[in-house]
Amino acid sequence: MNNYATYFQNVFRVTWADTDSAQIVHYSNYFRFFERAEEEFYRYLGFNFIDIGGKGLWLPRVEAFCRYKKPARFNDFIEVELTVKELGEKSVKYGFKIFNKESAALLADGLRGNRHSRQANTESNTNPKGNCWKVETFLQISF
Amino acid sequence: MNNYATYFQNVFRVTWADTDSAQIVHYSNYFRFFERAEEEFYRYLGFNFIDIGGKGLWLPRVEAFCRYKKPARFNDFIEVELTVKELGEKSVKYGFKIFNKESAALLADGLRGNRHSRQANTESNTNPKGNCWKVETFLQISF
Amino acid sequence: MNNYATYFQNVFRVTWADTDSAQIVHYSNYFRFFERAEEEFYRYLGFNFIDIGGKGLWLPRVEAFCRYKKPARFNDFIEVELTVKELGEKSVKYGFKIFNKESAALLADGLRGNRHSRQANTESNTNPKGNCWKVETFLQISF
Amino acid sequence: MNNYATYFQNVFRVTWADTDSAQIVHYSNYFRFFERAEEEFYRYLGFNFIDIGGKGLWLPRVEAFCRYKKPARFNDFIEVELTVKELGEKSVKYGFKIFNKESAALLADGLRGNRHSRQANTESNTNPKGNCWKVETFLQISF
Repeated sequence: MNNYATYFQNVFRVTWADTDSAQIVHYSNYFRFFERAEEEFYRYLGFNFIDIGGKGLWLPRVEAFCRYKKPARFNDFIEVELTVKELGEKSVKYGFKIFNKESAALLADGLRGNRHSRQANTESNTNPKGNCWKVETFLQISF
Repeated sequence: MNNYATYFQNVFRVTWADTDSAQIVHYSNYFRFFERAEEEFYRYLGFNFIDIGGKGLWLPRVEAFCRYKKPARFNDFIEVELTVKELGEKSVKYGFKIFNKESAALLADGLRGNRHSRQANTESNTNPKGNCWKVETFLQISF
Repeated sequence: MNNYATYFQNVFRVTWADTDSAQIVHYSNYFRFFERAEEEFYRYLGFNFIDIGGKGLWLPRVEAFCRYKKPARFNDFIEVELTVKELGEKSVKYGFKIFNKESAALLADGLRGNRHSRQANTESNTNPKGNCWKVETFLQISF
Repeated sequence: MNNYATYFQNVFRVTWADTDSAQIVHYSNYFRFFERAEEEFYRYLGFNFIDIGGKGLWLPRVEAFCRYKKPARFNDFIEVELTVKELGEKSVKYGFKIFNKESAALLADGLRGNRHSRQANTESNTNPKGNCWKVETFLQISF
């Protein structure tokens, strides 16, 4: 039933360009880390943002939040954990946690909400599944 | 009494590098716009992040939030409006609104919370004003 | 004769997000400063990248170079000076110099070369001016 | 004799945030890819930028160049190849090639030159090896 992936982990290095003059990762870059985990999650499911666009779908973000607990620094090996928090007819909300891979310390947590909508001026606009295409279905079987 | 600045506007252009493949501003860059307004606000008050560090103070961000309403695009002239939302003994929370300057449409709103603390290993650690140094005071008269 | 603009100055602040852990501007960001000056130059001439695309033209960059002399730091007020170095039938090369506005010190110089070409699958492909549309003409009168 | 590593490959994904409104990687980000390969190269050799700073050394970049051949796009799997081009007493120049991992097409090539110098105000300033500390030695055995 609930057979979409709901949990996903992605590990990567903090690069020099991610940091700022405080010698920690710039606060905006945590949102890039979130997105990178989301990208890898979609890849794991078998598609990517471009494939989605090609199907006439669009996933604009509607909100993003991050709570900063401990700084990430250059050369840190961090783990980004993605969880599907809410999955509606037309929206999905991901939760994220960022850990220092070595110390296991929680560095930050947050979320990103996307709304799924049909692009204007595409054939897909006719929406073959009626008004009730579920994001869930989309994540499971569209690709 | 309430004589710290509580409202500040900053206008600037969206550059090509701010955008992504969806031909809109990348969602993480709204947080850079927020920060840029905060930087200009401090300049208006007569100091900057580096001056603050030199005084042994530190303003780590504790949380950041953005709600996306309409996309900003390359070449847009945007207005970032900063408001002091909460001002405590040791923390400050700024609210932000981003408008399209031409259409006056609200593109996004959000917030950024900073905690103000003394850096370890600095003379300032002795905290000449006792435990009760107010961020308010800091914003008004420290510089 | 030589009535296209060949010299242009643009002044702006270094933001916190421009810097890295060495507490100076990240070396890749000088290329963003170059581009920002180019964008302002086009605006001064009366158009922007999007307008160009709408005309079926495309300006892919072919090379970029920067020589770093002195670091730019957070809060610096910098001046980017753009010069048209070479202007061919189908290419343009811009030279850039970045100065610290206060000290007048030269921080970096460099260049960026663009090739101008017609996009595939556009009406403009027919190229009404024959093979000999000059970038020069483009910069002067196309818009 | 020539027992320092002179060739190094690093593979990674192009993320959404790397791209711009032309739906290709922003031209400044190739320089971040170069640096990321350099970082991995140092890690492979057993140290990182921070370790170097701790030894009182500093590797400021003096020049950077990139020639763009074909665009890299979102989701591309790219290979960055680093080569030690020149290794002097106090400078090192790296050459870079970026390939599309799938098609093997060369997307860009370039270079980055660093000058190695002692930081002011460090003990290391006394330079125990005289004027003739070789970057080569540094890369081989300092760490």
